[in-house]
Amino acid sequence: MQATVHVFLKPGVLDVQGKAVESALHGLGWSGANDVRIGRLITFDLLASDKTAAETEVMAMCDKLLANPVIESYRVEIA
Amino acid sequence: MQATVHVFLKPGVLDVQGKAVESALHGLGWSGANDVRIGRLITFDLLASDKTAAETEVMAMCDKLLANPVIESYRVEIA
Repeated sequence: MQATVHVFLKPGVLDVQGKAVESALHGLGWSGANDVRIGRLITFDLLASDKTAAETEVMAMCDKLLANPVIESYRVEIA
Repeated sequence: MQATVHVFLKPGVLDVQGKAVESALHGLGWSGANDVRIGRLITFDLLASDKTAAETEVMAMCDKLLANPVIESYRVEIA
């Protein structure tokens, strides 16, 4: 199965990387771009018996390694 | 309009960050996870007249700033 994990900083957390990209875009003349947020996209193949088991496993991976649950939220997709 | 850009290393390019996460997952007992690839997910609000104009603008942003077209590929979504 193919797992995809989207990791983002939680809404209240300052996204410094996003702010830097936003001012770079403005500097290049794209002043219409606002509220830039940058996250991680993690994809991998996973050996699992079924979709529910895969989802549970990937969520455990997120809590332990792939995301920092204190400041980041994540979304798991299994295909 | 809300723009989402997915940036990934091209298939032939070694993903060192992905390899590191893969061995960390194996070390934690998740040996079923393979071929880990890590990309960036960039979201922002964009002032644009229509969807096609927005897409063209975001693709120009990708080529100039958001992605490195030599080693990275990207996908643009406008909602």
